Parts: sequence; C-alpha cells; structure tokens
Amino acid sequence: MTTKLAPVTSPADCKAAIQRENRRVTSYDVALLAGVSQSAVSRCFKPGASVSKATYARVMKAAQGLDYIPNAAARSLITRRSNIVGVIISHLANLYHPEALSELSQQINRRGKRVLLFTWQNELDVEHVLTDVWQYQVDGVIASAPLSDAHVAEFSRRDVPLVAFNPGQASQLVNSVVCDQREAGHMLVSRLAAAGHRLFGIIDGPESNAVCNERRRGCAERLAQLGYPAPVIVRGNFDYASGARGLRDIIAQAGRVPDALICGNDVMAFGAIDCARHELGISVPGELSVAGFDAAEASNWLSYQLTTLRLPVQKMAVAAAELLSNLIDTHDGDAERRVFAPQFIEGATARLTLPASVSLAA
Amino acid sequence: MTTKLAPVTSPADCKAAIQRENRRVTSYDVALLAGVSQSAVSRCFKPGASVSKATYARVMKAAQGLDYIPNAAARSLITRRSNIVGVIISHLANLYHPEALSELSQQINRRGKRVLLFTWQNELDVEHVLTDVWQYQVDGVIASAPLSDAHVAEFSRRDVPLVAFNPGQASQLVNSVVCDQREAGHMLVSRLAAAGHRLFGIIDGPESNAVCNERRRGCAERLAQLGYPAPVIVRGNFDYASGARGLRDIIAQAGRVPDALICGNDVMAFGAIDCARHELGISVPGELSVAGFDAAEASNWLSYQLTTLRLPVQKMAVAAAELLSNLIDTHDGDAERRVFAPQFIEGATARLTLPASVSLAA
Repeated sequence: MTTKLAPVTSPADCKAAIQRENRRVTSYDVALLAGVSQSAVSRCFKPGASVSKATYARVMKAAQGLDYIPNAAARSLITRRSNIVGVIISHLANLYHPEALSELSQQINRRGKRVLLFTWQNELDVEHVLTDVWQYQVDGVIASAPLSDAHVAEFSRRDVPLVAFNPGQASQLVNSVVCDQREAGHMLVSRLAAAGHRLFGIIDGPESNAVCNERRRGCAERLAQLGYPAPVIVRGNFDYASGARGLRDIIAQAGRVPDALICGNDVMAFGAIDCARHELGISVPGELSVAGFDAAEASNWLSYQLTTLRLPVQKMAVAAAELLSNLIDTHDGDAERRVFAPQFIEGATARLTLPASVSLAA
Repeated sequence: MTTKLAPVTSPADCKAAIQRENRRVTSYDVALLAGVSQSAVSRCFKPGASVSKATYARVMKAAQGLDYIPNAAARSLITRRSNIVGVIISHLANLYHPEALSELSQQINRRGKRVLLFTWQNELDVEHVLTDVWQYQVDGVIASAPLSDAHVAEFSRRDVPLVAFNPGQASQLVNSVVCDQREAGHMLVSRLAAAGHRLFGIIDGPESNAVCNERRRGCAERLAQLGYPAPVIVRGNFDYASGARGLRDIIAQAGRVPDALICGNDVMAFGAIDCARHELGISVPGELSVAGFDAAEASNWLSYQLTTLRLPVQKMAVAAAELLSNLIDTHDGDAERRVFAPQFIEGATARLTLPASVSLAA
C-alpha cells in the first residue's frame, strides 16, 4: 500500500497488539517502542532520577504514542512508597512565612516527591486531618502546626515519619527543626536594655501559640536577670489591628508610654508603630522603641524599616526536608533536633545606643 | 480464667484470627468488631461523608484496636479516584494572594479531596511538572499558572479535568474562573480621568504576566477613547524596589511627574509611594495620585491607605472548586468561563474629585 519503509515497531502496531491482548499499556511496551531498557523508562518517570536528554525525549515520544501513564497507585502498592509528603499547616492564610511553604515544596520536589497539603482552621479539625493523613499513605509528614504528645505518639505507632517544623517547644519525642525562641527573646532584651530602655511592653501572640510563648518567656527571663521591672504583657492575634490595640492597652496598664515595645510578629509591630505615629503622636523611635519578629517583606519598606529578628527559613526548610528524607529511608527511631539562631536586623524603629544625656551622666 | 463476660468479638480475638489467616485487616473486620455495616466503615473514612458521631466513635475505636488503615492506593485502583486534586502554582513565594491557596484548599477539602501542590520556579519546569501530574493520577487540576494551548490540549487528550484560576487571557478551550482585567483597567482610568488626571504612568508587571498585560491594555484603551495622551509605561517585577525604580523611570521618560500612577500590584505601589514621599519629596495624593491592584493586607494600613482594586478571591475559589467538582463527576467537554468583577477601594492615595480650581473654571 505504501512505499515508505515501515519502522520495526510503530505506535499503531504496538497499540493494536495491546488491544488484541486486551490489556493495559505497560512500561515494557514503552521500552520496546523507544528501544530502551524498561529501567530507563522507569527512571524517566521518576522525578529527580538521572536520565539523558535523548533517552528522555525518546521515552516521552513512545509513551505519548501509546497513551502510557505510569500508574502511581499501582506502583505505590508495590513499592510501598506513595512519593507524597504530607505538609500540615494550621491557618494557612495567616502563615507568616509564605516562603516557608515554597521552600519546603521545592526541597521535597528535589527529592522526587510532592507535597500534599493538610490545613486546618481550628483545633477541632485535628482528628479529621490525621485520619486523612493515614489514609493517603504519605511517605512522611512535615508539621507546622501544634501537635499534642498523643498525636506525636500516634505517628510513631503507625511508623509514619514526622518532622516538626518550627514548633514552639519541641517535644523530646519528635524530630524537629526549631529556632531558638528563648534565646531570641534574650537577645532582643539585651540589645534594648544596653541602650537604656527599662520599662518594656510585650504584645504577645495568641495563648495557643507556643512559639510566641517561648519567646515571651525568654524576654521576661532576661528582664528578671537584669533586675528590671516586669514587662507589661498583652495578647494579640498577629494582625495589624491587635498591634494598635495592644499599644493602647499597654499604655493604659502602665500609666505611661513604655520605653520599648516588643511585638510577637512584624504585622503587630506595624500596627503599633502606625498607631503611635499617626494616632497618638508618639515618635518612633524618639519616644518609643518598637521591635518585631519575622522580618516580613514589609519590614524593610521605607515607611517602617523595622527593627526585627529574621528566621533562617530557607536553611530550616532544607534541614526539615533532609531530616524527613533520612527518616523515610531508615525509619530510625532516635529523635533529632536541629536548632537555628535568629538573626538580628537593626532597622530604624528602635534606639540601640544610649541617649546622649545618659552617656554624659555615665 | 476470668469471671468477666467476654464480648462477642474482642480486638484481640479478631486480630488473632486475621493473623491465623495471614491476611491484611479489612474494612469488614472493622465493621464486625464495631457492630456496624461495612458501608458505614467506608463512610467514616471518606472525608465529607455523612455519619453519626456515635458510629464514627465506634468505628474509630475498632479501627484503632485492629490497626486498620484504609489503603488509599488500593481504593484508588478500584474507584479510579485518587481523591487528590492537583494545584499548579508558579512562583509560590510571590503568590500575591496567599489566601487564594488557603481558600482553594478549604473548598477542595470540603469535597472530600486534598490538594497536591505542584510549583514551578521557571517555565522550563512545565514539562516535568506535567509529567508528574499525569503520574499521580489526580482527579483534576486547578492551575494558577500560565499554560499554553498545547498544554491545555494535553489535559483534554488525557481526560484530566482542568480549571484555570485567574489566568490573564482565558483560552476558549479551558474551564476558567477569571477576573475581568480589561474592565478593571477601564474602571480605574475612568475614575482617575473624571478627577482631572490627564498624564498617566503605568508600572506594568513582567512581560510574561498575562493578567497584568490584559489590565494595562484596558487602561491604554480607555485613555485612547478619552483622547488623552498615551500613558508612559515601564515594566516591574511585582516587588517593592521595582515600584520605586518605576516611578523614577516614568518621571525621566515623561520629563515631569505624571498626574496619576497605576501600578500592576499593591507592593509596587507601596514602593512608588514611599519613593515619592521619602526620597523625591512628592506629595501623594497632593501632587501624584497612586493606585495599586490586589488589595493586599498592607493596603489598608495607616501608612498607606491605598487606592486599589480588590479581587473577590473567596468567591473565585468557591467557583473554581465547584467547576472542577462538576467536571470530575461529568467529564463534560464544554468549557465554561466564570467572570468576576473587581471591587474599587477608594483609599487615600489618589485624588478622586476635581481640584477646587478646575471646578470653578468648569
């Protein structure tokens, strides 16, 4: 019928044969058509596996010709690996480090896995979320959410590798990547105290937030060591409005404007600074020093130039992905903690040297 | 041995029987132990399915006693549903609406599915990301990333339901949830023109960003209709620095400060406003009106109170989840577009009424 040379195996011939045999397309069919080994086909479909560009192109062309899709579900039954890592995050919309999720996702991709998102709005959802986690048979979990000791034990009982990402107080039982929040509190108070600030106000995070609680404890501890008055502490919700409200409440409770204000995150610091400057007519840092936590994007905008602490989010994401990877490979039971130090950002909203009058008096 | 009444079936007896038979625990074993039907057990493990609190508690207790985990992979082979929805996002760290992902995740959870995240850093990753999408056998995909017509066709060929979320120019081929960007441009220019602004500067997004391009086209179109001078257009990267740089470049190109500046997103508007106020000594809105796009969190902070446009992100997320849900159930081929209008936020960075002198002259 045609004068063209027929290829040894054409997609059409191959497809017809499969149809005659009434079976699904397999990686063997693809290998045959592409003229490569079956393991080369596997590697092409394994994210992160090494394969030459030429082989990849041939395999993809053959796979497309046969409408071949490697079945992850079938493979998962054989390998016992789903290549899915669960990431549990509470209050995604309030995630103060959107780049943390981005970093985690990239690090996990690099290891040939993808992120399945588990979010919860309130603590009542935890049980449902965990039931789902067991069902999807994830290879492991990175949790940036408060998990109780009982929940941690359940991971261990089910042999599901778990790494806690930036928890406030890391349980001894769980692998975790943490930032030393108590040390962060010490550092901040020490710097501000050295500049002559004595009366401190603290706008803390919500009661359930262990990270903030730990930091606040660090601040109070250092103030006590210095023999300074106890700080005036109020709670906020991490939002702009609670920063403004927090400053007003602290002034009311203290009976005067404090020397320094430490906020549980940057957004509350922005709220407090704007309230001081635009509503109360208090100069920052002239009359009031303000410090935040996080080094959020807006912290180096000209309107703020906030004095704050930066979490090494990228390093922490790399560490979490590494820890989890090892756990998935070894299922080793010994818990490891990797602790990172926050970095002090001087900014321009806190006075960090003694005022001239004090220097002279000293 | 014991005087206590033995239960009809104890977890221990049940477990021993299973071990004798050398098989895995099944939902039937759980049903037997809990004294409920097998379908009740299924419902308990199906997110979003209706089940009474009492039944749920009994089933969970029995399942825990037997260490039963429903195997999602095995179920997926039978039902042909993975209960996973892929969400493809380019540049997660720059996601201008972190709440969009949160809303999508919640809406998808509500339908008994979870979000598998596919992110890419640059356009070269697209092929690898899509290969992964086919492998994980997701039930459907919501894409908030630029997909070519060829990619869209590939989804259709593989019969993987796809909804494009807030693409710039929606292809006629694909189900999509969009915001009318051209109309947004028209609206903004009309409001500013009515207040007497004539010379416009535009800080556009990157060339590859279809959303911004569409909006810029809308602005230019409306200016042409009004017979106003063509706007001075520069490109930015959506970051604070390119807002400041953009304003300087526009002033240099125009030879004067424009009457109004329209920025491709809020963050560039913050950069331009701070540059005008703190570096160039230009009063906003006294000498220069500035408008953004997005209604980002910081847009209503006292330091900015930005004039901007808000995308109805929550409604758009609900619509996307609904569209995808229907597609998964019906695999209907007709593409639907759901178009939402942006909402104008007056703010305080743009003059929106004619200045007194002009009013008198008119």
